[in-house]
Amino acid sequence: MKYGARNQLTGKITGIKKGDVMCQVTLNIDAPAIMNSVMTMESLNDLAIKEGDSVKIVAKAVNVLLVKE
Amino acid sequence: MKYGARNQLTGKITGIKKGDVMCQVTLNIDAPAIMNSVMTMESLNDLAIKEGDSVKIVAKAVNVLLVKE
Amino acid sequence: MKYGARNQLTGKITGIKKGDVMCQVTLNIDAPAIMNSVMTMESLNDLAIKEGDSVKIVAKAVNVLLVKE
Amino acid sequence: MKYGARNQLTGKITGIKKGDVMCQVTLNIDAPAIMNSVMTMESLNDLAIKEGDSVKIVAKAVNVLLVKE
Amino acid sequence: MKYGARNQLTGKITGIKKGDVMCQVTLNIDAPAIMNSVMTMESLNDLAIKEGDSVKIVAKAVNVLLVKE
Amino acid sequence: MKYGARNQLTGKITGIKKGDVMCQVTLNIDAPAIMNSVMTMESLNDLAIKEGDSVKIVAKAVNVLLVKE
Repeated sequence: MKYGARNQLTGKITGIKKGDVMCQVTLNIDAPAIMNSVMTMESLNDLAIKEGDSVKIVAKAVNVLLVKE
Repeated sequence: MKYGARNQLTGKITGIKKGDVMCQVTLNIDAPAIMNSVMTMESLNDLAIKEGDSVKIVAKAVNVLLVKE
Repeated sequence: MKYGARNQLTGKITGIKKGDVMCQVTLNIDAPAIMNSVMTMESLNDLAIKEGDSVKIVAKAVNVLLVKE
Repeated sequence: MKYGARNQLTGKITGIKKGDVMCQVTLNIDAPAIMNSVMTMESLNDLAIKEGDSVKIVAKAVNVLLVKE
Repeated sequence: MKYGARNQLTGKITGIKKGDVMCQVTLNIDAPAIMNSVMTMESLNDLAIKEGDSVKIVAKAVNVLLVKE
Repeated sequence: MKYGARNQLTGKITGIKKGDVMCQVTLNIDAPAIMNSVMTMESLNDLAIKEGDSVKIVAKAVNVLLVKE
């Protein structure tokens, strides 16, 4: 099983909040992980980041896909 | 500084691959973290997941935003 | 009318599930269609796919836009 | 293998266009398929769509994930 | 022509940067506009925002669709 | 504070609609703004747009992030 996405972590579900149409699933990530972000070169230049810098990684929950293997 | 997104991690940049218009930034996440996924109730029922289950968390790198605070 | 998106299909609505803020619309696609996915070169190499291969195409419903022409 | 996403089709790869950081994969969908869109109730009311209506389905290729099972 | 999306602005193109696979289009928005954001109730509570507050609105360019009517 | 995203506007909140899991925040954008869209070169060629053209800019509210600085 291979996914065409750079961010693939494993998590344990700690909570499920059910609504009428949508729901929200909360997970714990225990182990160290590698993540990736793709942006425009212009955004990279504005950020002025380089190897070794610490940054905040933000992702909306609607763009996170869960897969049960 | 508060973000209207459920997924907020901190990472250290380990690599930057530059292209003509787009670039890809790779990061290491060291500490344990909490993540969230929002999906339809139908998807939740199909997944048949519950608290305690381990699942794969997949997110495309284009939907990951970096912020330099 | 031209859209700056690679995936443009036509579907017939078969169901609408209404919630408080969000709703879900289900559609049938009858005819053959062409779809496209954009990913990083790294993801392509990991997938190790080539012309002729069959793959699963996954898209979250929140990222699907309906237009009434 | 279960995915927390409403849109799951199967396609055959017909072309791969490689760039420096990103690439584009083109696929053929042969069989009839079911798709879903999630939107706000306000958008639904503006669209004024109902069961049986034909609509255009638009999705950007960056939000389409390929999985090789 | 009606779109199932809450954010619909009109802009004039001021620049196009072409790459091998992807490109970036820059636009000017002149007139006042209304925008919308959908998030989880948890994010709303964390943000602690209310009517009248000024906030930053951030959207990645990959999730912005251009339509030529 | 720097964001790795091309679209950064400032808005004043005019309404909040709360649901069970999700909510919708409406904002007014007063000042002129610059926006950006990233798409495939194929989409650009299909659109056949050039500098000076007026186009519609469409973005789903789920992909709009609010930040309270």
